[in-house]
Amino acid sequence: MAGVAGSPALAEQGNNLPPNVPEWMKAPGDPMGSQPYGTPSVHEKGVVKNISKTLPQYISASGRTPLQELDGIITPNGLFYERHHGGVPTIDPAEHRLMLHGMVDRPLVFTMEDIRRFPSQSRIHFLECSGNPVYTKPYGKTASDLVGLLSCAEWTGVPLKTVLDEAGLQPGAKWIVAEGADAAALTRSIPIEKCLDDAMLVYSQNGERLRPQQGYPLRLLLPGFEGNMNVKWLRRLKVTAEPAYSREETSKYTDPMPDGTSREFTFYMEAKSIITRPSGGQKLTTHGFHEITGIAWSGHGKIKSVEISFDEGKSWQQAELQEPVLTRALTRFRLPWHWDGTPAVIQSRAIDETGYTQPTLAELVKVRGLNSFYHNNAIWPWRIDANGEVTNAQA
Amino acid sequence: MAGVAGSPALAEQGNNLPPNVPEWMKAPGDPMGSQPYGTPSVHEKGVVKNISKTLPQYISASGRTPLQELDGIITPNGLFYERHHGGVPTIDPAEHRLMLHGMVDRPLVFTMEDIRRFPSQSRIHFLECSGNPVYTKPYGKTASDLVGLLSCAEWTGVPLKTVLDEAGLQPGAKWIVAEGADAAALTRSIPIEKCLDDAMLVYSQNGERLRPQQGYPLRLLLPGFEGNMNVKWLRRLKVTAEPAYSREETSKYTDPMPDGTSREFTFYMEAKSIITRPSGGQKLTTHGFHEITGIAWSGHGKIKSVEISFDEGKSWQQAELQEPVLTRALTRFRLPWHWDGTPAVIQSRAIDETGYTQPTLAELVKVRGLNSFYHNNAIWPWRIDANGEVTNAQA
Repeated sequence: MAGVAGSPALAEQGNNLPPNVPEWMKAPGDPMGSQPYGTPSVHEKGVVKNISKTLPQYISASGRTPLQELDGIITPNGLFYERHHGGVPTIDPAEHRLMLHGMVDRPLVFTMEDIRRFPSQSRIHFLECSGNPVYTKPYGKTASDLVGLLSCAEWTGVPLKTVLDEAGLQPGAKWIVAEGADAAALTRSIPIEKCLDDAMLVYSQNGERLRPQQGYPLRLLLPGFEGNMNVKWLRRLKVTAEPAYSREETSKYTDPMPDGTSREFTFYMEAKSIITRPSGGQKLTTHGFHEITGIAWSGHGKIKSVEISFDEGKSWQQAELQEPVLTRALTRFRLPWHWDGTPAVIQSRAIDETGYTQPTLAELVKVRGLNSFYHNNAIWPWRIDANGEVTNAQA
Repeated sequence: MAGVAGSPALAEQGNNLPPNVPEWMKAPGDPMGSQPYGTPSVHEKGVVKNISKTLPQYISASGRTPLQELDGIITPNGLFYERHHGGVPTIDPAEHRLMLHGMVDRPLVFTMEDIRRFPSQSRIHFLECSGNPVYTKPYGKTASDLVGLLSCAEWTGVPLKTVLDEAGLQPGAKWIVAEGADAAALTRSIPIEKCLDDAMLVYSQNGERLRPQQGYPLRLLLPGFEGNMNVKWLRRLKVTAEPAYSREETSKYTDPMPDGTSREFTFYMEAKSIITRPSGGQKLTTHGFHEITGIAWSGHGKIKSVEISFDEGKSWQQAELQEPVLTRALTRFRLPWHWDGTPAVIQSRAIDETGYTQPTLAELVKVRGLNSFYHNNAIWPWRIDANGEVTNAQA
């Protein structure tokens, strides 16, 4: 740990430094209730969602979580990533309804009070946009620029299966078409197997009600499935025999393959990881001990292990995983490192409980060609130069 | 589940109801970036910290978490409870220092950057004020009025042991006196055993940096110990052979016993639970199915089980515990109930992994007498009348 300890010499600098009594101890601070709903310190006002200043338009756009500023696995609600296709609607929960119809014995319409009266569950799961990051042109300087369309929260709601049992599924029911109450009426088709497994109707996020950007007052949660399928502002569930082939299933969220076919209904987010500290835009200010830390996740279940390479991928070391390791949730990993000041390329790869290993970008391109866009789960290397500057090694 | 399903008759009421297209789908919603740091829906603006409007003064005061409005186990940072003795200081992290001195081989002064360079850990733990609730006068209408000086978050920081190893403890070191950088210079003595066990120096809370009310930029975290010992705005750690017998260890946070002695250094928060839904101030609007849910916690480790009584404590049923059940963290419990409309008294009791069972208030009074104040972990019953109104059964 040499080099980590602070220097007593600091005690000679400035009025607020030991052994002096700092100015903020000399008078009472802010009184109780100055913030009935609290906000971060004024010294953290730069830590906000990462939103491009030059978007073609802001109605269908995305705002990224500043992953490189965060610790642990829980994303605070104020920094949870957003992606919407018709802006964020302001919905009166007293007037919001969920309609359940189609191939059911009893079509039903639920108020929010009805939904809250069902038996509830709470689960910690990640959510990730399928275009996180873009594929063959790895733009971006920071971890947030690259994979900031990713967040994790404790969700509370009702297992979808419980609500479907109330309506009674009819023979031949194979899909459920979910529709959002936004101006885009975002519509996705969900296979019935997922609806009867761990799908939830969610109304709370990290204890409090959903934020408007996350679907207030009600959203669909499909743990491990691409973000846009977790339909926000959920107003309608239609049970069908066939998928809807909606706009988001044809012109969007599909990928052309080298053989001329297209991948569609690419539900699962594959195993993935990123080093968040040190990461692009940061700087190692001293040689010696540094902790390498980051996050790993898989739509297929728990993370089994994370490996880190300091030599451009020639050799790999096992990182420590922070307990609890939860299924379809972010997992924090850490590895101690001694940096001697020589330039290095550092990168992490995730292995999930199915045995699947996060691939390199070259391995993805070999299979998918160059015209793919979504579901880029490639390993992301960072370059550290002799000055300690950290940059995107693939930009 | 009879009676839970919504009625299709709702479809005839109002322009925003099915089969109509609601107004919020007819025009684009708020554009991206209207909230770089997000806030709750305008329809949730009543969900704020519970702060008395008639405090004698607001510099040494408390604000409670609205537990009856929350789900799951994570408390959002904006609603985390506050208790401070000299107001909330505004500290510049660039000028903040932690001084470690006393019975150590190498006295040290750390900057926040120094602290962040140590190997980190993330843990989900509750924090609770020792005066939660007051003892023999069970005031309060809601769960928040009674035990709202309680919250739970994912904390990230450095094991205190790691930092102490850096300084080197000297023989005879038995206590560490921690001092806050607030106007009260809040000071508490921590037994060395706890400092070398799971104590942490914490800088992040639910992913982002600590809120000012929770000790920004640095606080002590002593999982399971009474809240005031988890010193906020931490500036000084002095290793000693004896405790400081500070104001908070003599005139406050001690309890007179019937035999004329006083309980002091009452570190641990004992096993406790509360039903949050239905709870005081709420109303059961229909007979039939209702989910009973609440939270349980223990400073001594994991919750082993939670039992619920519907008959004034004559009989008890086992509630279901939401996984993951974590040590010294809130645990969410649930039990389905059919309410037939007859008046009832409902209450929960927690049993922790040591086998300890949460007592009744009468059992506490028998041991502690009537002049005690802190560490009231009594069972809290709610009365449900024939109209479904829920009230404090001990008020």
